[in-house]
Amino acid sequence: MSTTDPVTPLPGPIEPPPRLLMGPGPISAYPSVLRAMSAPLVGQYDPFMTATMTETQELYRGVWGTRNDATLLVDGTSRAGIEAAMISLIRPGDRVLVPVFGRFGHLLAEIAERAMADVHTIEVEWGQVFPVSAIEEAIARVKPALLGLVQGDTSTTMNQPLDEIGAICDRHGVLFYSDATASLGGNPFEADAWGLDAATAGLQKCLGGPSGSAPITLSDRAVEVVQARKKIEAGIREPGDPSASDFVRSNYFDLGMILDYWGPRRLNHHTEATSMLYAARECARLILLEGRETVIERHRVAGAAMLAGVEALGLVVFGDVAHKMTNVVAVEIPDGVPGDEARAAMLDDFGIEIGTSFGPLHGRVWRIGTMGYNAREDAVLTTLAALEAVLRRFGAAVPAGAGVEAAADVYRGASV
Amino acid sequence: MSTTDPVTPLPGPIEPPPRLLMGPGPISAYPSVLRAMSAPLVGQYDPFMTATMTETQELYRGVWGTRNDATLLVDGTSRAGIEAAMISLIRPGDRVLVPVFGRFGHLLAEIAERAMADVHTIEVEWGQVFPVSAIEEAIARVKPALLGLVQGDTSTTMNQPLDEIGAICDRHGVLFYSDATASLGGNPFEADAWGLDAATAGLQKCLGGPSGSAPITLSDRAVEVVQARKKIEAGIREPGDPSASDFVRSNYFDLGMILDYWGPRRLNHHTEATSMLYAARECARLILLEGRETVIERHRVAGAAMLAGVEALGLVVFGDVAHKMTNVVAVEIPDGVPGDEARAAMLDDFGIEIGTSFGPLHGRVWRIGTMGYNAREDAVLTTLAALEAVLRRFGAAVPAGAGVEAAADVYRGASV
Repeated sequence: MSTTDPVTPLPGPIEPPPRLLMGPGPISAYPSVLRAMSAPLVGQYDPFMTATMTETQELYRGVWGTRNDATLLVDGTSRAGIEAAMISLIRPGDRVLVPVFGRFGHLLAEIAERAMADVHTIEVEWGQVFPVSAIEEAIARVKPALLGLVQGDTSTTMNQPLDEIGAICDRHGVLFYSDATASLGGNPFEADAWGLDAATAGLQKCLGGPSGSAPITLSDRAVEVVQARKKIEAGIREPGDPSASDFVRSNYFDLGMILDYWGPRRLNHHTEATSMLYAARECARLILLEGRETVIERHRVAGAAMLAGVEALGLVVFGDVAHKMTNVVAVEIPDGVPGDEARAAMLDDFGIEIGTSFGPLHGRVWRIGTMGYNAREDAVLTTLAALEAVLRRFGAAVPAGAGVEAAADVYRGASV
Repeated sequence: MSTTDPVTPLPGPIEPPPRLLMGPGPISAYPSVLRAMSAPLVGQYDPFMTATMTETQELYRGVWGTRNDATLLVDGTSRAGIEAAMISLIRPGDRVLVPVFGRFGHLLAEIAERAMADVHTIEVEWGQVFPVSAIEEAIARVKPALLGLVQGDTSTTMNQPLDEIGAICDRHGVLFYSDATASLGGNPFEADAWGLDAATAGLQKCLGGPSGSAPITLSDRAVEVVQARKKIEAGIREPGDPSASDFVRSNYFDLGMILDYWGPRRLNHHTEATSMLYAARECARLILLEGRETVIERHRVAGAAMLAGVEALGLVVFGDVAHKMTNVVAVEIPDGVPGDEARAAMLDDFGIEIGTSFGPLHGRVWRIGTMGYNAREDAVLTTLAALEAVLRRFGAAVPAGAGVEAAADVYRGASV
């Protein structure tokens, strides 16, 4: 076929099958977030565009629990936010400490390695979190420039307590960065009260939007570090502008430049992804409209209902339940049940997605999420009813109706 | 205010003002692209999702004019695509040649510097392109590992001829990369016939979508280079997987890893930005549905009509018109007309955006685009009618109706 031949036959407009996404994320977006993305575009420096960027920054201050001026979006998936934070804050050769309690701890370590850091890790078994003392001991020993700590690691469902870490970092002069992709919006997060210097997230978990935009917030101390390393491009540089020699090894992720674009100078960098900005704005607006604490409570109840439901079905929950995120639970796949076939039956016959897992847990556990729009009673009960039917089909002994009723009981006892 | 106080008053759903975007991009998206983004999400490994990724790759082969297997999207703006290509192909210390004929040449050089390349540039005056001989002479002298060459630089509106460059690069053993962000879809581009090793774009110009997804295509030779440098993350690495020491200094932009995610192994990397994938798919689908050559011809006619219109209004066109992109024209701001005030009047009173410029052209020229959805007769004539009114308001002597009629004449003579 010649390269100019048309693709034959051309497909029609996108028409996704109906799906209830109850995995570890991405999950079904709020309908109004989907609608927001179909709003018409405006120009990059249209007063409406810059006002929308500014408004979105203020909305995310409310979501993060911060007054950080440097609260904005990185144009890319949650991983883009992680890389922007780490590569802008880490100078080559800096010592970086990453406590690893699941796959995303490995990711932070790997991104720090790419940034040419001297990376030190500590590990706990998957399914556990670190005692604060273990992190403090490692900080005292390693003396890192930066601590990179995942809050909620979906690979294990664990939620690492962060509330005492900021004070420790402050005492040791360590920058404190957290990846809150999986947890933000469905679990408490207090950027200012907990002393975070940098935190990043994505829309596709508890924020209830699509992957592709990464909210980020930076303390004044973090901003000082990134501003000292900022370059201004030759094509738009003016006399007197700085040109750092200790530059960030990325243009796209140079937070100093990105801050100049989001800040009053509006210095051109990338062309802000307008539709994703609209989506991110709507995700934050919905959280603040419902109330940040109310949304977290809705996640807590949905998670408790799903937990009660899977336990009532006789499934064994993986990991330290006392430190589980509200919004996802991992259950061991019962002996004799083919894990991937059962997941396929959930998807094909019920239109419901639940998740598999990574690394040491691959083939051992399923992960079931209750987040964002889907942290709802009907989504929880429907998933449990389907799961019961599928388990029975594959020969597992499951008590009839027990999962649904245990979850409904949680809702009956809750005020949500 | 405490950090948990709600933002008061909360804004309503996004409600952008009506805008006809006739600047250098972003431009108004095709309505069906906006609709595609409001389609429901599916899971990351849903068979529909992976099939949609594969289908989108094939659609972009048609857009790029290539049979390259490695034809995919980078999740970020057009600049993300540029950085992914350059940082994955350039090893620290590699010699890189960048011919600069506008702002985006400076950007390629700057990104190559971030990748720790030994960067060599040649320059022509803004408003000109390079003769092929000048590029060949520089290649022979510099002996670069990679040539980075912008096709269409919106800062000057110039379209650098590329068709003879691939053969030269091939003779000298040089990787040939082009940034086609501003030109792809509205001007001829033949990745295979012209011997490109890598090319990148964005949706927000002639492809008629929002910023936020970067189509990219890589030749087999380019794939060999990036695969040799690929790392696999510790969290998902299996025995026998390679772990390169000569690694790319970015995880997010490591094309070897991104290819493993888009390829048959479907190895988890980022979570593909589903809504932007839907948008990118629809942009390519619309081009192939209308016919790639037909779309380019539509841009050619719209550009010729706009050119005739602004000349009939007495405006002086900037740069070498014989080498102008079809989809944007730069005109000198007439003496005595306040450029930014006139642009503001276009926007505020007519809802039409035209563009300012950068660097040496800032305050000297306006840039008027006719691209994607807006490469249409009604968009061209409406813009010219409004421009005439605004020029007259600011005291310029403009012949009544001449711009609109000159443009309409072009359409009367064309078969579009």
